[in-house]
Amino acid sequence: MIFAPLPMIVILKPKTSKEQVEEVAREVQKLGYSPHPIFGELQTVIAAVGDERTHHTLESLTVLPQVERVLPVQKRYKLVSRESKSEETVVDVDGIKIGGGNFVIMAGPCSVESEEQLMSTAKAVKARGAKILRGGAYKPRTSPYEFQGLGLEGLRILAAAKQETGLKIITEVLSERDVEHVSDFTDILQVGARNAQNFQLLIECAKSRKPVLLKRGMSERIEEWLLAAEYILSNGNPNVLLCERGIRTFETYTRNTLDLAAVAIAKKESHLPVIVDPSQGCGRADLVPMLCRAAVAIGADGLLIEVHPNPAEALSDGQQQVDFEVFSRLISELDPFLNATKRKLV
Amino acid sequence: MIFAPLPMIVILKPKTSKEQVEEVAREVQKLGYSPHPIFGELQTVIAAVGDERTHHTLESLTVLPQVERVLPVQKRYKLVSRESKSEETVVDVDGIKIGGGNFVIMAGPCSVESEEQLMSTAKAVKARGAKILRGGAYKPRTSPYEFQGLGLEGLRILAAAKQETGLKIITEVLSERDVEHVSDFTDILQVGARNAQNFQLLIECAKSRKPVLLKRGMSERIEEWLLAAEYILSNGNPNVLLCERGIRTFETYTRNTLDLAAVAIAKKESHLPVIVDPSQGCGRADLVPMLCRAAVAIGADGLLIEVHPNPAEALSDGQQQVDFEVFSRLISELDPFLNATKRKLV
Amino acid sequence: MIFAPLPMIVILKPKTSKEQVEEVAREVQKLGYSPHPIFGELQTVIAAVGDERTHHTLESLTVLPQVERVLPVQKRYKLVSRESKSEETVVDVDGIKIGGGNFVIMAGPCSVESEEQLMSTAKAVKARGAKILRGGAYKPRTSPYEFQGLGLEGLRILAAAKQETGLKIITEVLSERDVEHVSDFTDILQVGARNAQNFQLLIECAKSRKPVLLKRGMSERIEEWLLAAEYILSNGNPNVLLCERGIRTFETYTRNTLDLAAVAIAKKESHLPVIVDPSQGCGRADLVPMLCRAAVAIGADGLLIEVHPNPAEALSDGQQQVDFEVFSRLISELDPFLNATKRKLV
Amino acid sequence: MIFAPLPMIVILKPKTSKEQVEEVAREVQKLGYSPHPIFGELQTVIAAVGDERTHHTLESLTVLPQVERVLPVQKRYKLVSRESKSEETVVDVDGIKIGGGNFVIMAGPCSVESEEQLMSTAKAVKARGAKILRGGAYKPRTSPYEFQGLGLEGLRILAAAKQETGLKIITEVLSERDVEHVSDFTDILQVGARNAQNFQLLIECAKSRKPVLLKRGMSERIEEWLLAAEYILSNGNPNVLLCERGIRTFETYTRNTLDLAAVAIAKKESHLPVIVDPSQGCGRADLVPMLCRAAVAIGADGLLIEVHPNPAEALSDGQQQVDFEVFSRLISELDPFLNATKRKLV
Repeated sequence: MIFAPLPMIVILKPKTSKEQVEEVAREVQKLGYSPHPIFGELQTVIAAVGDERTHHTLESLTVLPQVERVLPVQKRYKLVSRESKSEETVVDVDGIKIGGGNFVIMAGPCSVESEEQLMSTAKAVKARGAKILRGGAYKPRTSPYEFQGLGLEGLRILAAAKQETGLKIITEVLSERDVEHVSDFTDILQVGARNAQNFQLLIECAKSRKPVLLKRGMSERIEEWLLAAEYILSNGNPNVLLCERGIRTFETYTRNTLDLAAVAIAKKESHLPVIVDPSQGCGRADLVPMLCRAAVAIGADGLLIEVHPNPAEALSDGQQQVDFEVFSRLISELDPFLNATKRKLV
Repeated sequence: MIFAPLPMIVILKPKTSKEQVEEVAREVQKLGYSPHPIFGELQTVIAAVGDERTHHTLESLTVLPQVERVLPVQKRYKLVSRESKSEETVVDVDGIKIGGGNFVIMAGPCSVESEEQLMSTAKAVKARGAKILRGGAYKPRTSPYEFQGLGLEGLRILAAAKQETGLKIITEVLSERDVEHVSDFTDILQVGARNAQNFQLLIECAKSRKPVLLKRGMSERIEEWLLAAEYILSNGNPNVLLCERGIRTFETYTRNTLDLAAVAIAKKESHLPVIVDPSQGCGRADLVPMLCRAAVAIGADGLLIEVHPNPAEALSDGQQQVDFEVFSRLISELDPFLNATKRKLV
Repeated sequence: MIFAPLPMIVILKPKTSKEQVEEVAREVQKLGYSPHPIFGELQTVIAAVGDERTHHTLESLTVLPQVERVLPVQKRYKLVSRESKSEETVVDVDGIKIGGGNFVIMAGPCSVESEEQLMSTAKAVKARGAKILRGGAYKPRTSPYEFQGLGLEGLRILAAAKQETGLKIITEVLSERDVEHVSDFTDILQVGARNAQNFQLLIECAKSRKPVLLKRGMSERIEEWLLAAEYILSNGNPNVLLCERGIRTFETYTRNTLDLAAVAIAKKESHLPVIVDPSQGCGRADLVPMLCRAAVAIGADGLLIEVHPNPAEALSDGQQQVDFEVFSRLISELDPFLNATKRKLV
Repeated sequence: MIFAPLPMIVILKPKTSKEQVEEVAREVQKLGYSPHPIFGELQTVIAAVGDERTHHTLESLTVLPQVERVLPVQKRYKLVSRESKSEETVVDVDGIKIGGGNFVIMAGPCSVESEEQLMSTAKAVKARGAKILRGGAYKPRTSPYEFQGLGLEGLRILAAAKQETGLKIITEVLSERDVEHVSDFTDILQVGARNAQNFQLLIECAKSRKPVLLKRGMSERIEEWLLAAEYILSNGNPNVLLCERGIRTFETYTRNTLDLAAVAIAKKESHLPVIVDPSQGCGRADLVPMLCRAAVAIGADGLLIEVHPNPAEALSDGQQQVDFEVFSRLISELDPFLNATKRKLV
C-alpha cells in the first residue's frame, strides 16, 4: 500500500503577531510536518508539507486562538483514485465482466418472497437481458414491525434460481456474522445505504474476496463514499462496484434525489465501475424507465432495477418496483443510449 | 380562472372522545368545509370536502389539542397542471418554438463583459446550432463586492448581437422596476434561483407578456416551483419555461445537485416545457457535457449552457463556463440522444 | 468603505510540471495578484496575495487542466464583521434599544386580519412586555390562491395600533416599490426568507435608513446571510437586525430546522444583534415556548413571536401561532434565562 | 408486545371512475384491511382500517394507475411512545439515575489515547461534577488511514479509570461481535451516528441488557430515530438514552447542525431520556459552552461532552474538544439553566 504526503494549509486570523505565527509553526513541526509560512498583507497561512501515514491531521490546531481554519489539500483516498490506477477496473463476477465498456443489468425483486415469485422474475429478467439476479433475503427495515426478509430460506431460493437460470446472484448482507454464509450463496455482496459507513462490515466483506457492491449512504459526500470503498481496497479486495442510489434532500416528491452528476464524478475520480439504482433512487416505479436512460447517458456501467411480478402486492417497497412489461419495454429502449455512450450490454 | 374543491384530511389523536371529534367537525364546518368523519378502531380521521377558493386551509386546526395532523389531499397547482391541460405547451419565442418535441439550445456567457466577448460568443454558439443567446446584464452576486454586470450597457450589447446574428435573447431580470425596460431588449425574461419566490417580480414578468424562464429555487420543492409558475399563469401569461438548475444539498464536490428526476416529474405533472441548466447545475465546466446528455435522455426540452471565449479570465463563474471547443464537441455528441428521445433541434 | 486584500490559494494537481506551475502563476499575476508558489513533495499550491477591490476571484482558474481547486482564505464580509467593529451594535428603534445586552420581544399575528384582531393582540402582547408589534400586511404565500394580506388597509390598522398602544411596528416589505410607503407606517422593515437574496430589495431598504430585520434564507449559509447584510451596510444603513428563522432540511416533523448554533456564530462573526423567530423556526405552536428559552440561552438579542387571539381560525399559519395565554406564560418563564445570560428586557 | 391497528389513507387521482375506485377497494381488502371510501366532488379517498401486525403496508398500491398517494395515519413507533407509557423513563446506570428530572454530565476524550491522558481527564471531569466518563476505544473513522482507537487496550484503560475514580463508563461499540466483550468493560453501550440504522448491532446491544445510548443518524428523521430505538425496546431492553448530535445540512460553517427542536420533540413523543452531544453537534470547541446552555434550556436530560487535556494534539477530533479550564467554566455556568428547567445534577 503506497500513498502520498499530504500538505495541509493552516489559515491564521488577521492581525496575528509574528510570535503567534511561530507558535503555530512549532506546533505543526511537533505534529510531524514541515511548516512553510506565507505572509499576506493582512493574513498569514502556513503550508504543512509531510506524510500523513505516520502523522495525524492538523485540524485539531483550530483550537488555538490564532488559527482560523485548517484546509486539507490532498485527496484522502488513494487506492480507489485514478491517480493510483488510471485504467478502468473491470470487475469479473464469475465470468460476467462489469466496467471498461461492459454494461450490466442486475434485476429482480426487492425481497425474495417465495420460490414462485423469484423464479418467475428470474426467467422474465433473464429473457430481457439481465445477467445478474437481485433479491433481498435479509432486509434492513426502518421499523421492527416490517417484513424483515426470509433469511436463510431466501438464500436457498436464490441458489435454486441460479441453478435453474444460470443468472449470477447479488444479495444484501446486513451483518458481519452473515458475510461468510451469505458468500456461499451469492456472487456479489451488496452493502446497503444504511451500512455505507459500517466499516466493520466493509472489512469483513473485503476479506470474503467476493465482489462488493457498495451503495452510497443517504447523506454521504462523494469523498466519504470513495473512502468507504478505500476500506475495502485497503483490506485486500479490489473488486468493488460503486452504486449511486439517491441522497436525502428536502424534496419530498421523491423518496431520494438521484445524484447523477455523482456518477460522472465517481468515474472521473476513481477507476471503479459505477452502478445506478433508479428504484431506490426515486422510490417511484413510474420514473424508473426515464432514470435508466439518464443513467446510461451520464456514463454508468450498469443498472440495479427492482422488478416484481405484481408490485401492488409486494411485501416491501412495491411502489418502486416495475412489473415485467415495464421492465421489458425499458430495456428495449436503452439500446440507442448504450450505443451513444459506447457501452456494450454483457 | 377555474380551480377545484380541495378535500383535506384532519387526523385526530388516538383515544379522542366522541365529543372532541364533534368539536373538530364543527370547526371544520365553521371554516367552510363539509366534515366526513371515519372512525378507526384507535384513531379517527375527518375528511373535509369543500372549495378552497372561498375558504382557507385547515392546517391551523393543528393547534387544537386533539388534532394530530392535517394532510392536504389535492394538489395546490391548477393552471400549470396536466389535469387542466393535457397536451404539452409549446412556447413560441418570436418564431422559435420550444416544447412538444422541439428542443432548443440557449448558450452564451454568464455575464456580458464587452461587445467583443459577446459577439464572438454569439457567432460561435450560432455556428453550432444555438438559437437563443444568453448573457447577464444584471447579475445577482452573493457579495456586494463582486462584479454586478454592465447593466444597460450590457443590454445594448445584447441587442447589437441580436441584430448581427439573428439569435433571440434571454437575459435575467432582477428587479420589478427593470421588467419594462429589460423587456425592450430581450425575447425571454429569466428569473433566477434567488428570486424564485419573489412573487412581486413574477407578477410583473407575467404582465410583460414576454416568455419567462423560471429557475427552480435552491431549496424549492417541486410543488413550490410549480406554484411559482402558477403565479405567472394565473396573472395571465401562459408562456413559461421551467428551468431545473440544481438544488442545494450537503454535497460539496459540486456547487449544486442537479435533480434530473425533477425534470421528468415536472413534465409529468405539468404541460410546460422544461429546460436544464447544467452549468449552474454542477458549477464545474468538466461535467457539463455529460450532464447535457443526461438532460436530453431524461426528456428535457432544452439546455441553457454557459459558454465563454476564455473561461479562466471570465468576470463571473468562470469555473462553470465551457469554451468554444468544448461547446462545439458537446453539441455534436447530442444527436443520438435527441433521436432516441424523439426530439428535434430547432 | 474599507476592506482588505484577499489572498486565495490555488491548489494544483499532483504531478504538475514546473512549466505548468509557471503558467498558472502567470495567470494569477495577469488577474492582478502576486503569486507565491509552495512546492510540496507531490503537490504544489500557489498563494495569491492581492486586493480584491480592483481585481476578481481566481475561482475561474479551475478550468485550467492542471488546477485542482481554488480556496478562498479571507472572509468575504467586511463591514458586518467583528474585525471591522469589535463592539456590539445597538440598534435604536425610535427609542427602543436592541443589542448590547438589551433584549427585545416583538410579537403579534402572522397577518393583520382586522382592526379588532390586531388591537386585541397588541394590547395583550404589550401587557406582557412586548415593545414591538409584528403583523403582516403584505404576505408572500407559496400559492397564488392563499390569503395575500390586507395591503394598505393592513398598514393603516398597524398605524392605529401604534397610536393606541405606543408599540413600535415591524412589518414585512415584499417589493422595492413598496419600500417607501411601507416605511411611512413601520419602524422596522422586515425582509423575509424568500427575499433573503433579493439584493435590489435589500439596497432599497438600505436607502430608507429604517432599521431592517433581515431573515436568513431557507437554504442560506451563514456566510451568505452575512454577505446579504453586507449589502445593506455597504449601501449606507448600519441598522440591521439579523434573524434566524430555521433552515430547510430533510426533517419533516418540523416546518424548518431552527439552527441555534447559527445565532452563536453570527454573534461571534458579526457585531449585529441577532433575533430568533421560533414560530417560523419550527412551524408548531407547541414547541415555541421551549425554543424561546433555548434562544435566550444561546445568546439571542430578541424574539419575534407569532401571537393570535384564536390560532385555529387564523387566515395564515395558524398552526404556528400561540394564543394570549401561552404567550403570557412563556414570557413569564423567560426571566431566569435572561438573568443567566445577563440580558435585560427592554 | 402490543401495538395498534393502523389506518392508512389511499388518495385516488381526480376523475377516477367508480369501477376504478372499487378495484382499489378490493385490493385494500385483499391486503387485509377494511376499505372506507369517501367521495369528494373531484377526488376520492379510501380510508383503510385494520391491523398492521399481520398485514403489510399499502404503499405498494401507488403502482396502480388510479392511485395518487398512500398516506400513513398512525405513528409507526409503539413502545417508545408516550401513548404506550406516559411517565418519563428513568434509566439507572449502576446507581446513577438519568431522566425524570435527573440531569447527568458525561465527559471525557473523543478517543482513549493513553492511561495518563484518560486518567488526568477522568479526575478533571469528576472534580467538576461529571458522573460518567466517555472515551472511545473503537473509533469509526471516515478514512481507513486515520487513528482507529486502541481497541482492547483502550477498554482496559477505561476500566482502570473507573476503578480509580468511581466514574461510570460509556464507550462506543462498532461491531455486533464486540458487544459482549465491550459490555464487560462499560456501563453504557454507545451506538454512533454511522450505525444508527445498523439494526443487527441494535438488536445485539438490546440483548446485552446494558443501557444503550443511541445517537441520531446524520440524516435520520425523528420518526426513524424513534423506530431505531423501537428495535431495542422490542428486543427486550427498555434502557435507552436517545442522543441528538446534529444532522447533516448544507451549512458548512459547522460540522453538523444541532437540531435542538428535536430534543423537545423526542421528549414529547417518547418517554425516553434525551442526551445532547454538543461536541459532535457543531464540531467546534468554541461553540460548545453556548450549546450546552441551550440544550439544558430546551429540556435535555444530560450532556455528552468531549474533553481533552490538550486538544491541539488530540489523535482525533481535537477541533471539537474543550480543555479542562473551558469544561470547568462551562459546568459552573449551567446552574441557573438547570434550576430554571427544574433539573437536578446527579
